[in-house]
Amino acid sequence: MSGFSAFDHACMTEALRLAERGLWTTDPNPRVGCVIAREDRIVGRGWHQRAGGPHAEVFALREAGEAARGATAYVTLEPCAHHGRTPPCAEALVAAGVERVAVAAHDPFPEVDGRGSERLRAAGIEVEHGLLQDQARELNIGFFSRIERGRPWLRLKLASSLDGRTGLANGESKWITGEAARADVQRWRARSSAVMTGSATVRADDPALTARVDAELAAPVRIVVCGEGGVPIGARLLADGLAPVWLAGPKGSLAELPRCEQIELPAAERGVDLSALLMTLGERGINELQVECGARLAGALLRGGWVDELLLYQAPCVLGSGARPLFDDIDLTAMMQRFRFETVDRRFLGDDLRWRLRPLSDHQRPEETPCSPD
Amino acid sequence: MSGFSAFDHACMTEALRLAERGLWTTDPNPRVGCVIAREDRIVGRGWHQRAGGPHAEVFALREAGEAARGATAYVTLEPCAHHGRTPPCAEALVAAGVERVAVAAHDPFPEVDGRGSERLRAAGIEVEHGLLQDQARELNIGFFSRIERGRPWLRLKLASSLDGRTGLANGESKWITGEAARADVQRWRARSSAVMTGSATVRADDPALTARVDAELAAPVRIVVCGEGGVPIGARLLADGLAPVWLAGPKGSLAELPRCEQIELPAAERGVDLSALLMTLGERGINELQVECGARLAGALLRGGWVDELLLYQAPCVLGSGARPLFDDIDLTAMMQRFRFETVDRRFLGDDLRWRLRPLSDHQRPEETPCSPD
Repeated sequence: MSGFSAFDHACMTEALRLAERGLWTTDPNPRVGCVIAREDRIVGRGWHQRAGGPHAEVFALREAGEAARGATAYVTLEPCAHHGRTPPCAEALVAAGVERVAVAAHDPFPEVDGRGSERLRAAGIEVEHGLLQDQARELNIGFFSRIERGRPWLRLKLASSLDGRTGLANGESKWITGEAARADVQRWRARSSAVMTGSATVRADDPALTARVDAELAAPVRIVVCGEGGVPIGARLLADGLAPVWLAGPKGSLAELPRCEQIELPAAERGVDLSALLMTLGERGINELQVECGARLAGALLRGGWVDELLLYQAPCVLGSGARPLFDDIDLTAMMQRFRFETVDRRFLGDDLRWRLRPLSDHQRPEETPCSPD
Repeated sequence: MSGFSAFDHACMTEALRLAERGLWTTDPNPRVGCVIAREDRIVGRGWHQRAGGPHAEVFALREAGEAARGATAYVTLEPCAHHGRTPPCAEALVAAGVERVAVAAHDPFPEVDGRGSERLRAAGIEVEHGLLQDQARELNIGFFSRIERGRPWLRLKLASSLDGRTGLANGESKWITGEAARADVQRWRARSSAVMTGSATVRADDPALTARVDAELAAPVRIVVCGEGGVPIGARLLADGLAPVWLAGPKGSLAELPRCEQIELPAAERGVDLSALLMTLGERGINELQVECGARLAGALLRGGWVDELLLYQAPCVLGSGARPLFDDIDLTAMMQRFRFETVDRRFLGDDLRWRLRPLSDHQRPEETPCSPD
């Protein structure tokens, strides 16, 4: 890794920037960027735009043309070696006469998984891995989660007052946060494969759960976890046809409803078997799963260790202890059991604050400082 | 106000910086700084150090000596005109031959209240008010509150998890926030005239409520608002002798306890009459009152409109809805009734976040944006 030059870093940074252009459209494929450079000059750029369309390398090689001969290719993800919906990119790089390939992240997809790099090396191309690997993995955190863990990256989005309340006792919840925060939520939805909520939220708020962004995108699937009460037949998301709807619940609990798919799950002690649900969503190609739900489902997800990221919007207001909480059914008897998070970033959005957090697993918890008397 | 030069601003800024040195020690007097300047050069500096000691002007004039003749004096608060524990500063400025006095804030103290400036003008000195007035008022926000409103500036300090919980159901609350946040709390206590809590908190946590800072300071009074149950005779704050203790409660509710003063108050529907309590504290010379309490008293203070500032420390952890809330007995039936705040500042302290907020009164609330469907 120490063998990479400043120019190498600059080229891979550019490739990552290109990859990001596919943030809202490549699903269920990963976002990938490619830069072809020769003698300190970039001669080709490309990024994967949508599943079924050409890969990043193809666009970059096309732009580079003859200049690719003897050049270095920078790809944010290991080039594919298999015939999928498009021919293998490793072959295309070989055919173009590229001399060196720098790869940010290894592709764990079973049909690639090192074979892309092997194919390149077999053709005498120098292949180096690991340049800006962390950034490349972060960009496709859902894809890596699905391929490596079999389940989506679960981002729990919540919005609350300073005293941790998501709505009034009577259910009124519009609006706690301001416009900037709500627009930000739409962008996080747009990069998700699916947006999930509970049936109680559908009954209370009748949300559309669509990603309202000013751009073309692969419309995220809307998933409803059905508890008692289910989804009313008049629910907006069943009627609007704006994106697919999947209803998930224990066998027998799902009513026949129009325009939706049903996912039957084993029943669990409290509600549905979340492990089974998430593995099913992984099998169905869900990379990033954004959950926007009430306190009961949020509590179950946190308790079960299913929350990979917490996106919490806080508004500078107070609703009081009679209002609705963020996480139900968390029963702690000692402070050391508390759910702790590492802060990825904190950002001000208008009057509101956005926390982006990831759980600290037990072994990551810093040493407790000894209790000093107050 | 447009008549002030850049040099005037620089000198008053320096005077404010000097005044701040008295932040922990001048109580119940205001923090005041003074700069004497002549021909673009500062020749004297002073600040009020403690009640009963010389005022800022005296120190500055002493340093300036003969150079004060024909100079400009910059004082953060209108010079006094009365014989208190020290002779009037207005006289001292006249005697020193100062030609011009720039004043940041008018002193509303009844024995000054314009008389200081009058006395200076009567001696032919040019007097200009309003230079950096807002900063000067902010520095003495408790003093101005006590003199102008008859009650202290009430700063409610709370610490919670992200889901607005101050401790576990079983009462355990140490520690939610980290060391940096807890050290910051000590500095806010140090600038307060008093630190107040409820008797339930004394029974549960047995706090010392002292300001543990590495410096000399006027030890803030410790005030306990007594509800049912009162203060146990073994409470640490009764025994340690580190600062005065005042117990406040309805007539007849206060047990005879050693080493404390008792403040009898009219009973109110729920707990004590907070208005009567705060007016009494004003009469007793309390400028800044820092309240650190449980959800019941915090809710009553917010409901009553008595919270002037909310200092909220948030730690990146979750305790769940079974844990203790921030504000009890707030019953809202519509979102527009929510308690909204203006953010004074937001600051990161280690892993924690500190919000400093001031309530938006009704007429300050921005126009509600129309509800758009989700």
